[in-house]
This record gives sequence, structure tokens and C-alpha cells, in this order.
Amino acid sequence: MQGGEFSISTSKKMEFIDITERISDAIGAAGSTARSGICYIYNPHTTAGLTINEGADPTVRDDIVAVLKQVIPMDYPYKHLEGNSPAHIMASLMGSSVTVFVEEGRLRLGTWQKIYFCEFDGPRSRKVLWRMV
Amino acid sequence: MQGGEFSISTSKKMEFIDITERISDAIGAAGSTARSGICYIYNPHTTAGLTINEGADPTVRDDIVAVLKQVIPMDYPYKHLEGNSPAHIMASLMGSSVTVFVEEGRLRLGTWQKIYFCEFDGPRSRKVLWRMV
Amino acid sequence: MQGGEFSISTSKKMEFIDITERISDAIGAAGSTARSGICYIYNPHTTAGLTINEGADPTVRDDIVAVLKQVIPMDYPYKHLEGNSPAHIMASLMGSSVTVFVEEGRLRLGTWQKIYFCEFDGPRSRKVLWRMV
Repeated sequence: MQGGEFSISTSKKMEFIDITERISDAIGAAGSTARSGICYIYNPHTTAGLTINEGADPTVRDDIVAVLKQVIPMDYPYKHLEGNSPAHIMASLMGSSVTVFVEEGRLRLGTWQKIYFCEFDGPRSRKVLWRMV
Repeated sequence: MQGGEFSISTSKKMEFIDITERISDAIGAAGSTARSGICYIYNPHTTAGLTINEGADPTVRDDIVAVLKQVIPMDYPYKHLEGNSPAHIMASLMGSSVTVFVEEGRLRLGTWQKIYFCEFDGPRSRKVLWRMV
Repeated sequence: MQGGEFSISTSKKMEFIDITERISDAIGAAGSTARSGICYIYNPHTTAGLTINEGADPTVRDDIVAVLKQVIPMDYPYKHLEGNSPAHIMASLMGSSVTVFVEEGRLRLGTWQKIYFCEFDGPRSRKVLWRMV
């Protein structure tokens, strides 16, 4: 099993950041360029998530963020007093990990797919963990 | 590691298609009938997803589709001009992959569980990928 | 591959139950205390789910449950006549499995993360399955 972690800096309250190349590079740097297997990407934060969605048109991720903001109420009488309950809810809706296939060292994504880190309570410094079996 | 892919044709704009038997058959055809392990099912499309839910009563999946349509606004001022932003959002809500256990060649699902391909922007020809470790 | 299953009893219609220690104990009891790998946790029920979210402040999980109840309509004209369609929808929104990394026998969760069993149609007796590779 190979793996590692890397840091990313988010710059907005809510944004999706394309980490596809970071994952590809990490797999390559770990000497897995000729290997096939399964790669797990894991987000260790509770106000962020991971998802796979379209990368060609950046307005798709803007739309996803905008609708999540509209669907999850911002002015609800939340009990959690830090004020970031919507971010926690969105984190669970997106999920804490994604699984992708690797073929001969390359991520086997669909034509339009990119892997996104979903920031819901930024800006912050965040970590992403990965393992490959 | 064994694996493969298969095609499915969807016939509606939005529908859940039971692919449990396709997965079982694929595992069997790959000669894994006596094996135990973990099976990963992956959807390479950005306006579709995968989920596991009830199979006994088909109205359950009708209800899930109906409520997703109600919760995710269809008439929002989306920036993405293809008109399928709701489908992208639903894809991330359901997720791009599911993980199931295999015991002696058989999927270890719960009594009522079936594996569904979630079409959100059909009808289309789609692919499903799987790997087993 | 090691694995097993355990039972939990839920006491409310909807609640999130912290199963982190149950998973840690199960890994330990299976003699995996020195091992590193990937642990899969699987929920075999169709009106329940699994998620990873904050454990420090219990109001976070109360807020998640409260908002799910608000977002998914309870009085919609559901076709499924058992009356638990909202529970099925929430099950798919949370997901049927979570994947976590294990390092030298310990779950590699983020500082604030706990693993939750999400009951959406309790109270019931439920099962949780796990495998580690």
C-alpha cells in the first residue's frame, strides 16, 4: 500500500477546488506510475467534503455551491453555536471520501470528471489524505 | 484484482435502474464465484450517480426521484448553459461510487438492498465500471 | 482480509449514533492492532445510513438531523405506502458505506471526526458490517 497527504489553501467561504492533478502527481511521485489498483482519497475535516463532478465548465461547480446554499438554510435556529452547521450538513451530503480506479498509473476517470475538494467553511488551510492498494 | 465494465441504456430523463444482477453476473463471469472480497462500482458520468436502496417496492425509487426533483430547483438562474445543472447536483448528492462486500462470490447486501444506477439527464447510453479486490 | 459485524439498538425515530469506538474495538479484537490498511464500514439497511462528521459538540448531529427533516418533505404525496419514504431518501443522501484509513491498528480520522450510524426510521435493532484490507 502506498499513500501520502498534501495541503491545500482555500480562499473563499465556499468553493470547489480541483485536486485531480494533485492526486495524479502524488501517485506518480510515489512510484506508482506503472501500477493498477484502487485509490482512496480522504478528507479529514468536518466542514469540507470530496466529490467527483464536471471539470470542463467551471460554472457547474458554481451552480452546485449556489444550490447547496439555497437548499440548506443559513438562518435556521441551529443549536451548534459556532455558526457553521450548514457547512457540517453539506460535508455529510458530499461525503468524506471518494474512490477511483487507477490503470497503469493513471486515474480512470470519465471524460468530464474531475475530483473536487469541497470547502464549506473557508478560507482555511486543509489536508487531503490518499492511499492506493 | 478483477474487473470490467458494462453498458446500460436509460429510457427516461430521470430514473433509477437496478444493476444488482449485472454486477453479480459480471463477478461470476470473471471467475470470482468462489471469492470473497470488496467490490467497487464506479459511474464515470457527471450527470448520473450510484446508490443502494430498497428493491422490493418500486415506488421507493419513484419517491426518491420525485423528491430530488422537488428539492433541487429546476428554474434557478443557473450559470451553466446546458440546462442540466440539477443533474450535476443530484450526481454529487448520490455519489460516484458504491462499495459492497462479496462473500464466496455473492454480494453481501442487506435483505432489501439493491444497487441502483441513477440517471439524472437521460435517456442516454451509459457505462458502469467495477473492480474487485 | 479481516472483518465482522455488530448490532446496535436505536432509540429514536431519527438519530446519529457514534460507532467510532465499536469499530476501533472490532479492529482490535480481530487482532489487527498492529496493521495498517483500509477499513470499510457498511450499513445493510435501506432506511439508515453512515456518515463521518463532528463528534466534539453533540448539537452538530442534532442540527444535521433537524435540517434533513426540514429539507425532505414529510407530507409529500409519496407513492410508497409504508410512510417511510423520507427515511429512504435520507439513506441515499448519507450513503450506505464509509471508508477510513487504519494506521498501526488505529483509525486515521481527523481531529474532530467521528463515524456515525444514521437512523432514519427507528427505533430498531440494526447491524453494521466491516471489512479491513
